[in-house]
Amino acid sequence: MATVEELKLRVRELENELIKCKQRQAAAEDAHNRPRIDKMSAEVVDSNPYSRLMALKRMGIVDDYEKIRTFSVAVVGVGGVGSVTAEMLTRCGIGKLLLFDYDKVELAIMNRLFFQPHQAGLSKVEAAEHTLRNINPDVAFETHNYNITTLDNFTHFMDRISRGGLEEGRAVDLVLSCVDNFEARMAINTACNELGQIWMESGVSENAVSGHIQLIIPGETACFACAPPLVVAANIDEKTLKREGVCAASLPTTMGVVAGILVQNVLKYLLKFGTVSYYLGYNAMQDFFPTMAMKANPQCSDRHCRRQQEDFKKKEAERPKVEAAQEEEEEIVHEDNEWGIELVSEVTDAELRAASGTVPDLPEGITVAYTIPAEETASGETVEETEVSLEDLMAQMRKL
Amino acid sequence: MATVEELKLRVRELENELIKCKQRQAAAEDAHNRPRIDKMSAEVVDSNPYSRLMALKRMGIVDDYEKIRTFSVAVVGVGGVGSVTAEMLTRCGIGKLLLFDYDKVELAIMNRLFFQPHQAGLSKVEAAEHTLRNINPDVAFETHNYNITTLDNFTHFMDRISRGGLEEGRAVDLVLSCVDNFEARMAINTACNELGQIWMESGVSENAVSGHIQLIIPGETACFACAPPLVVAANIDEKTLKREGVCAASLPTTMGVVAGILVQNVLKYLLKFGTVSYYLGYNAMQDFFPTMAMKANPQCSDRHCRRQQEDFKKKEAERPKVEAAQEEEEEIVHEDNEWGIELVSEVTDAELRAASGTVPDLPEGITVAYTIPAEETASGETVEETEVSLEDLMAQMRKL
Repeated sequence: MATVEELKLRVRELENELIKCKQRQAAAEDAHNRPRIDKMSAEVVDSNPYSRLMALKRMGIVDDYEKIRTFSVAVVGVGGVGSVTAEMLTRCGIGKLLLFDYDKVELAIMNRLFFQPHQAGLSKVEAAEHTLRNINPDVAFETHNYNITTLDNFTHFMDRISRGGLEEGRAVDLVLSCVDNFEARMAINTACNELGQIWMESGVSENAVSGHIQLIIPGETACFACAPPLVVAANIDEKTLKREGVCAASLPTTMGVVAGILVQNVLKYLLKFGTVSYYLGYNAMQDFFPTMAMKANPQCSDRHCRRQQEDFKKKEAERPKVEAAQEEEEEIVHEDNEWGIELVSEVTDAELRAASGTVPDLPEGITVAYTIPAEETASGETVEETEVSLEDLMAQMRKL
Repeated sequence: MATVEELKLRVRELENELIKCKQRQAAAEDAHNRPRIDKMSAEVVDSNPYSRLMALKRMGIVDDYEKIRTFSVAVVGVGGVGSVTAEMLTRCGIGKLLLFDYDKVELAIMNRLFFQPHQAGLSKVEAAEHTLRNINPDVAFETHNYNITTLDNFTHFMDRISRGGLEEGRAVDLVLSCVDNFEARMAINTACNELGQIWMESGVSENAVSGHIQLIIPGETACFACAPPLVVAANIDEKTLKREGVCAASLPTTMGVVAGILVQNVLKYLLKFGTVSYYLGYNAMQDFFPTMAMKANPQCSDRHCRRQQEDFKKKEAERPKVEAAQEEEEEIVHEDNEWGIELVSEVTDAELRAASGTVPDLPEGITVAYTIPAEETASGETVEETEVSLEDLMAQMRKL
């Protein structure tokens, strides 16, 4: 039988072992963090996570890199494109990120970057926030684990993008659509048209080998209701696309490239360098990257888009002539970024349909995601007279 | 004073607590793993990490996706481009990855994707292997924490790429250069020329806003000694580039795009779909993606390159005419991928130099990384007679 002394020794041993075990655990958790950094520095030391971003100033690329901390960006959809988009913005030191998604992490998405197998079962926004906060604790995060297309959530989403900026009450600087379905895209389009919120759209084809990004300035460039959304021509059998209930293909390469060109466009837009692209496509089969731009359609079915167009026209008219001329010159940095096409009443729905999926005037390599069914033109109702609600739009989209 | 009974109780409590603590630790470590999967399946269930890759078959993009498991790829340089490259290949389910790097993870590289702050201080290959194995335990990994340009390591590197394939003794299927300096690129070039090993090069400019990938088939396409390496024209002040001791700028966007187009090219090459690019550039300022191709230079200073050219010529001559004609037709899928330029003796070094950094015939947006100094042409020695060693080449490069 053990003596009191032996037992005391054993207690001390066990206590020490337990302390060590707990310390190891705490260390493992702490190790995921770095201390916050109050002020971005350009100092070239191994411990400075911002030195290579601040070097963009010395290289003559960006005038004021520190300004990145004053911006807030909403990322809607934290999947193959959205998660990498959020990670890039986090590593660039963006001020605030708002993440919206209602999906869970599954092993089935391990073929794209970002999420890891041990996160399976967690909500995407929760898992993403945890990883991103570890990567850069200087970024403010706000996550919403819901579907933005339901009525209540849509109202809340509108509120957050109009008031959830870096200082509460201010709008976000940019909304990024990284969703994988039409309903969600239309919800973002509707919200941004109503709020006059500038946003960027991104998409990857269901065959995984093409994608695009698009900048939408309400009232100025075509919104999602102005014209059928543009996609990169697949050059492959269209019948394989968009079949109900069939698992879409995806590749980490295509999604990584699309996230890369999306966030590059965000950085160029926010930090004012280079040429911001209105539309940039990616055809991975041929390594072809078409660009273009498209004006807003005066007969757009979204009344808020038409109102924004009126406001834009007024502002343009009020602008001093000299300034306007200067800006025009600045905008046309290379010819691909001039306004390419005007999709207005000259192109009827019937003509679109007759073109069997392709609007004739689009640049090589770009096509439309769908054409408008003939039934709609036959109704006799002009687009101008219709006040289409979000619900109507969604119902229409579901049919397509 | 405690009784024996009290002490025994305390011992039991502590033992239980310690067991629980160790279990939590083990669970935390285990959570990072998923079980291995023997056979890739196309089954559409949440738990299948390959369903969306296998869907490429149903979508008509890839004939035999499972073949990915039979390939081994060496990634030299596990930095901003190499780490993402390795992650993409891991998530795609590549058979084996060989990683070469001698650098450590530092907070200063947290502005690019992949590494996390808690890995600071670890070797890049060690940290990368740990993360990648957790992401996909079906991939075989081999890591080498050394600088390939020293004599002993170079010999070992040659041995591993020629014998470190999926089955020991077989060569790897592809070598990817993701290094950030000229010496390492030249070492890879020398090794691949000697072994007749097909490889792909990648690079990102020091101002962070351009990059490129290039496919090099020894004897067929221009190697790194055939002509000055091609880079995307910066269109900005060249004086800001390549200053000694100054921290280069880098962006997760540019590096993510370059890794994406690199691995896409790898997948197209290994799995035989789409058009494999010989050279694809990325100019982030203008969203411009030039493509081109360049034949090997018969007067290349690398004797192994010249030997490979002779072998290639013989093989071409031996090929049945019909087959040759068919292949030619297949290769020219779009005009940018035809052979663009022949950099042979028509262009003298003096002419290159006179062009002040730009070879006149290069497609818009592409330029050379450097021009050859006039001293070398003045020596009277013809390139044909020189047997340049690796050391000589490196010494020359250092001077440039």
